[in-house]
Amino acid sequence: MIVTLLTDYGREDDFVGVCHGVIRSIDADAQIVDITHGIPRYAVRQGAIVLRNTLPYMPVGVHIAVVDPQVGTERRAVALRTADGRMLVGPDNGLLSLAWQRCGGVEIAVDVTRSQHRLEPVSATFHGRDIFAPVAAHLAAGAELADAGDPLEPDKLVTVDLPEPRRRDGAIVAHALVVDRFGNAGLNVHHDDLAGSGITLGGTVELEVGGERYLATYAQTFADVRPGELLVYEDAYRTLAVAINRGDAASTLGLRPDAEVRLRPQ
Amino acid sequence: MIVTLLTDYGREDDFVGVCHGVIRSIDADAQIVDITHGIPRYAVRQGAIVLRNTLPYMPVGVHIAVVDPQVGTERRAVALRTADGRMLVGPDNGLLSLAWQRCGGVEIAVDVTRSQHRLEPVSATFHGRDIFAPVAAHLAAGAELADAGDPLEPDKLVTVDLPEPRRRDGAIVAHALVVDRFGNAGLNVHHDDLAGSGITLGGTVELEVGGERYLATYAQTFADVRPGELLVYEDAYRTLAVAINRGDAASTLGLRPDAEVRLRPQ
Amino acid sequence: MIVTLLTDYGREDDFVGVCHGVIRSIDADAQIVDITHGIPRYAVRQGAIVLRNTLPYMPVGVHIAVVDPQVGTERRAVALRTADGRMLVGPDNGLLSLAWQRCGGVEIAVDVTRSQHRLEPVSATFHGRDIFAPVAAHLAAGAELADAGDPLEPDKLVTVDLPEPRRRDGAIVAHALVVDRFGNAGLNVHHDDLAGSGITLGGTVELEVGGERYLATYAQTFADVRPGELLVYEDAYRTLAVAINRGDAASTLGLRPDAEVRLRPQ
Repeated sequence: MIVTLLTDYGREDDFVGVCHGVIRSIDADAQIVDITHGIPRYAVRQGAIVLRNTLPYMPVGVHIAVVDPQVGTERRAVALRTADGRMLVGPDNGLLSLAWQRCGGVEIAVDVTRSQHRLEPVSATFHGRDIFAPVAAHLAAGAELADAGDPLEPDKLVTVDLPEPRRRDGAIVAHALVVDRFGNAGLNVHHDDLAGSGITLGGTVELEVGGERYLATYAQTFADVRPGELLVYEDAYRTLAVAINRGDAASTLGLRPDAEVRLRPQ
Repeated sequence: MIVTLLTDYGREDDFVGVCHGVIRSIDADAQIVDITHGIPRYAVRQGAIVLRNTLPYMPVGVHIAVVDPQVGTERRAVALRTADGRMLVGPDNGLLSLAWQRCGGVEIAVDVTRSQHRLEPVSATFHGRDIFAPVAAHLAAGAELADAGDPLEPDKLVTVDLPEPRRRDGAIVAHALVVDRFGNAGLNVHHDDLAGSGITLGGTVELEVGGERYLATYAQTFADVRPGELLVYEDAYRTLAVAINRGDAASTLGLRPDAEVRLRPQ
Repeated sequence: MIVTLLTDYGREDDFVGVCHGVIRSIDADAQIVDITHGIPRYAVRQGAIVLRNTLPYMPVGVHIAVVDPQVGTERRAVALRTADGRMLVGPDNGLLSLAWQRCGGVEIAVDVTRSQHRLEPVSATFHGRDIFAPVAAHLAAGAELADAGDPLEPDKLVTVDLPEPRRRDGAIVAHALVVDRFGNAGLNVHHDDLAGSGITLGGTVELEVGGERYLATYAQTFADVRPGELLVYEDAYRTLAVAINRGDAASTLGLRPDAEVRLRPQ
C-alpha cells in the first residue's frame, strides 16, 4: 500500500531516511512517496495547506504528516480515516485538518499516543520515527485503525483556520498563504472571488504590500510577461499567486506567509 | 517499468512529490528513479547535458525531463522513442535532444500537448504534473506511444547546440558546460582533444579565465594535489573538469556555464 | 532486498540518482532507502556516527556508505558482513567501523577494489557509481560476498576513534560530534555519564564553549523551554544534545564537530 510523507524535516539530515527504514522494516512492500520535506520548520498551517492541495494527486493510502513544534508534550498523536478512505497519521495540532475537510470529513479517529505499534522507548523529540511511521506502516500492512490506539471523538480534533479574503474600498484584501522556493506566493483568493472586482485576465492589477504599490499583469503563465516583470496568475492549485518571470516575487515584495496583499484593477 | 525524472523543480517544494503521486496513481508498480531535481532553474542546455550523461546508467524505461521556461505557451510537449528502445517525455525545447542523439536517434515522436493521458484541467504552469507524468506513467504501464499524441516528424524536434573547443595561439579554447554543487566545472573537452597540445597527465596546465591566469595540475583525482590546489582531471563522464581539492573551483575562478577557459601547457 | 545509501553527495547533483540507476540496472527489485546524502563533505567521522546511529532502524540488507576524500588513490574499497547479518560496502577509511562495531563485529571482509562486479572503466572520482553501487547491487541480488573481491583480514580494516568525555574540576568535558540542519548539536555524553555530576533533569546546566558560558535547562523536549532558550536534552539516539527552542544552538554558541563543551551543574 502507498505511504506518503509530508514533513518539515528537510533532506539534509537522516530524519527522513530513518522513517523510511522504520516503515520498510514493518511493511517490506510499502510504496513510499515523499510529498515534501521542505515545509518551513514548525509552519503547521503551511503544512496543512500543502497536504490539502497535494493529497488529491496521491493514490489512496496512509498519509503521514509531521510538523510538530509541541513534540514530546501533552499534544495528542492521532490516526484517522476520511470519508473517501484515506488514513491520515500525525500530531493533533491542525496539520491534518484541511486535508480531512477536503476528503469528506473524519469517519473514525484514534489517539495513537500510546499505540501498541509505537517503537519503545519513545523518544521525546522524534515521534516521526517512534510513533507516526510505525503506526502508519502497520496500517499500510493491514492492521485495523481501531486497534491502533484509543477511540477519539472526531469533533475533538484540533483544526486550523485560514484567513478569508474581503472587499474594502474597491480592493480585494487577501493574504499570502504559501511561498515556494522560486518566490511564488499563493494567495487565499480564487479566480471566482474576482467576479465584479474589475480585475480581468490580461489586464493590469495593482498590488499593495506593506504600504508599497506595484503593477502586475493578470496572466496565464510566466512567459506571458517579460523576464523581471510581475504577474498574477491562477496557479496549479487553482488559487491566485504572485510571481516575477524568472525572478523572486516573495523577496522582491517582502511577501511572507500571512502578509496582507491588496489587489485593485488598474 | 522504470520511470526516471530529471527536472529543475528542486526538492524543497511539493512539485516532485506530486509527480510521483501522479505516476503511482496510474501505474502502481512503477519504479521511480530521481536522476536529479537540481538542474539550475530554466537551464535547458545544462539539463540536456546531464540527461545525456546519466541516461546510460539508467535501466531502459520511460524518462521524463522537465526544464521548461516556456511552460503554458505554444511550445510543444513531446514523447519519443529512441533507436535503443528508451522513451523520452518532456517539453520540445531541446532538453531531450542530446540524450536521443546519444541513444541512436529518434524512431518515432508524438506531440502530447493534447494527449488523451493528460490530467484535465491542464494548468498553465505545472505540465510536469498534468502532462509529462501522466503520459509517462501510461507508457510505463504499457500504452502505445503512437496512441499518446499526434504524429510528429522527428526532424521537427528542437535541438540544442554545444560550443566546440578550438585551438588558438597554442591554447585550447574551451567552455565550462556544467558546474556541480562542489564547484567542479566540466568543460567541453575530452582527453583525446589534448593530442598534440603539450598538455600531459601529471604536468602543469595554465588556465585563463576572465583575463586571469591560474596554474593547475593535470591529475587523476582530487587527492593527487594538496588541499586548496587547482587540478584538471578527466571526470566521471570522461570530459575534462576543473576542481580545487576540498575547495570550490567555480566560485574561486568565476566559472559559470558558458565561461571561456583557455588551457595551455606550462 | 534492501539497499541503503549514506553519502556526502548532496541531492542537488546527479550522483545519487546515477547510483540508484546502477543499482536498479543490476537488481531491478531492489528496495532503496536513502538514509541521508547530507553528511558534510569529506566528514568521515560524522558519517560513521550517523551510520552507526541509523542502521538499527533499517531492515537487514546491503548498506552502502560513501564519504571518500581519498577516492582514486590506494585506499581500499571493501565489503563486509557483520555478525548480525548486514552487509556493508564502502571505502576502507573508518566510515563503516562504528556501524560494524555496533552490529557485533565483522565476520568476513573482502577487498572489492578490483571486484568482478565493478563497472569498467572505473573512474578515478566516482567509485559510488563504478564500485560501491554495483558491488552492493550484486550482493542484494544474491551474489556471494566471498566472490565480490579478494579476502581481507577484518583486523586490517581502518577504524575511527571518538573522543571520550572526562571529568575535570567538577565539570564534564565533552565534545560536539554531530550538528544537524536545525543547529542541534549532539555530544559524546550519555545520560548515564551524568551520574554523580550534580546535573539532573529539570535543573540548570552551565555550558562553557570557546571560553563563553551559557545557562541551559536540562529538559525533555524543546517545548519545555521558551522560544529562544537553551536546553540540554537526551536526543533521539540517547545521547545528550544542545539546542535552542525554535533557534539554532550551533551557530549561536559556535558549536562545530569536535568543539569542546564543558557542562557543570548550576
